Amino acid sequence: MASPSQQRALHTVQRVQGSSFDIALIQLGDIGTDKAKNIDNARRKMDEAMQVKQPPHLLVLPECFNSPYGVDFFPEYAETIPFRPGQTQPTLHEKAVSAGSPSVDMLSRTARDHKIWLIGGSIPERDASTGKLYNTATVYNTAGDLIAVHRKLHLFDIDIPGGITFKESQTLTGGDRVTLVDTDMGRLGLGICYDLRFPEMAMIAARKGAMAMIYPGAFNTTTGPPYWEILQRARAVDNQIFVAACSPARPESGYPAYGFSMVTDPTGKVIAGAKEAPETVYACIDVETINKTRQGVPITAQRRFDAYPDVASGTSS
Amino acid sequence: MASPSQQRALHTVQRVQGSSFDIALIQLGDIGTDKAKNIDNARRKMDEAMQVKQPPHLLVLPECFNSPYGVDFFPEYAETIPFRPGQTQPTLHEKAVSAGSPSVDMLSRTARDHKIWLIGGSIPERDASTGKLYNTATVYNTAGDLIAVHRKLHLFDIDIPGGITFKESQTLTGGDRVTLVDTDMGRLGLGICYDLRFPEMAMIAARKGAMAMIYPGAFNTTTGPPYWEILQRARAVDNQIFVAACSPARPESGYPAYGFSMVTDPTGKVIAGAKEAPETVYACIDVETINKTRQGVPITAQRRFDAYPDVASGTSS
Repeated sequence: MASPSQQRALHTVQRVQGSSFDIALIQLGDIGTDKAKNIDNARRKMDEAMQVKQPPHLLVLPECFNSPYGVDFFPEYAETIPFRPGQTQPTLHEKAVSAGSPSVDMLSRTARDHKIWLIGGSIPERDASTGKLYNTATVYNTAGDLIAVHRKLHLFDIDIPGGITFKESQTLTGGDRVTLVDTDMGRLGLGICYDLRFPEMAMIAARKGAMAMIYPGAFNTTTGPPYWEILQRARAVDNQIFVAACSPARPESGYPAYGFSMVTDPTGKVIAGAKEAPETVYACIDVETINKTRQGVPITAQRRFDAYPDVASGTSS
Repeated sequence: MASPSQQRALHTVQRVQGSSFDIALIQLGDIGTDKAKNIDNARRKMDEAMQVKQPPHLLVLPECFNSPYGVDFFPEYAETIPFRPGQTQPTLHEKAVSAGSPSVDMLSRTARDHKIWLIGGSIPERDASTGKLYNTATVYNTAGDLIAVHRKLHLFDIDIPGGITFKESQTLTGGDRVTLVDTDMGRLGLGICYDLRFPEMAMIAARKGAMAMIYPGAFNTTTGPPYWEILQRARAVDNQIFVAACSPARPESGYPAYGFSMVTDPTGKVIAGAKEAPETVYACIDVETINKTRQGVPITAQRRFDAYPDVASGTSS
């Protein structure tokens, strides 16, 4: 029998608070072994992405944009970020940043120069106190302040015979939390690549009011074709949110990043996307589409937390 | 930092215990207002489905196979099932059944006659003690014993302007639990139609050892095209299990059931399926594909229950 609270819930479809905004995913090419060149390249492509009639409100870079993607590269390319996860809205002190993190410095300046929100893909990060390495996304507001950090929670350790073997845990440590980011446009959830595999992060983010999950990611030519799109569509349709994933372009050599950056709407439909080549993908994160989807199919009010637990209750994020 | 238990988990990919088996989904046509005819029709189609060189081990019927699908029909077509959910492995007393439930009687006899496992789609059910109505799936072993009952947990109450409006809760009550069924071939999870929308049921079933989720279901021509396949593929890929969903065929009039019964493998790939017309879909639920998928991409050992809760812990199923 439906409990009184469940009966009430049936009449309260969860509407998302927030405003519609435009997003651009920079599917970077030419990520090589020259770190300074990688950073300059990312900056130039972001500047170019703003040269459109209606510039986006949020830019997203791919996973590991300043370093080749490989466990042996991470220690060499790692930077220390002047921010401890758990702090909220810290101000970025440029001087401190410049010393230890040219990537963070560039990202902060780009956000400030263009007065834009920026999810700076991910970079190898070295924790100042423990020395441990992480795969880390940094987020900036329109003033260039570093407002959030997500350390990849699920490390990419897989072994597909005849396909690909990769073991991030050889040099990296996983993060310890789900990351939500509050922007002027609304709340966003953040994950990195293999985090896409684990539905809990998007479930928690959506139930805590996120309009979209953003995943910098670098699937490959083995896992990309069967899994990259279906995982994003699954996150979107199950949570009735937007999902955006930004990959590097397919390189000529090295780790075979899949490409195919894309944006999926709350019905699970891919609404914009790239192929293998470098490209910037533009899309609108439309809050009305979320609300309309949830009103038509009101799963946000019909979950049966009397029969199974709510993964979003009890998490600290 | 990864906890010791997490580190241990990385080395223990969850392998499914069970054996490979063949399944047949009976996409029934001609479900009309004549209940006796509906029951005969289902029996005849099941008999036909067994007339193949290698008969399947498990038959599945669609949702609401003995009644037109509509809230006004449920009270008239409902049957009382001589079984209380929560009991395990009761013996079916045919005499008692025949009196109150011709559908259950036919299903039991079919399972026994063919010595086959049978998920009898769903029927409108009237609870003997409360008089409440449910949308209920019944499951039989090869001796014809009724071994499990699943009452649809999530009622289909939706309102898509210009599409479809339906409100099962006008006459039905939702069940109160996730249902697992233990067979000779292995453990299965059970859901009905709109239950597909809610990822928790499949997550719980898979984490408790289920090889597959089976959903009798009747999506429609509005919700079918965008949602039917993606939801099944999402359940399969996120839990690395098989998913099978059995729909009625597309009728000429009445509730516009979508059809497209299908089976999806643990990588999220649809491996067998029908279109709109009546058809029986055969597929192999191959335990080695589950184990191989989980060894290649070992998400079953990489979940971060230190950072978010496990929905499968604390459920009584």
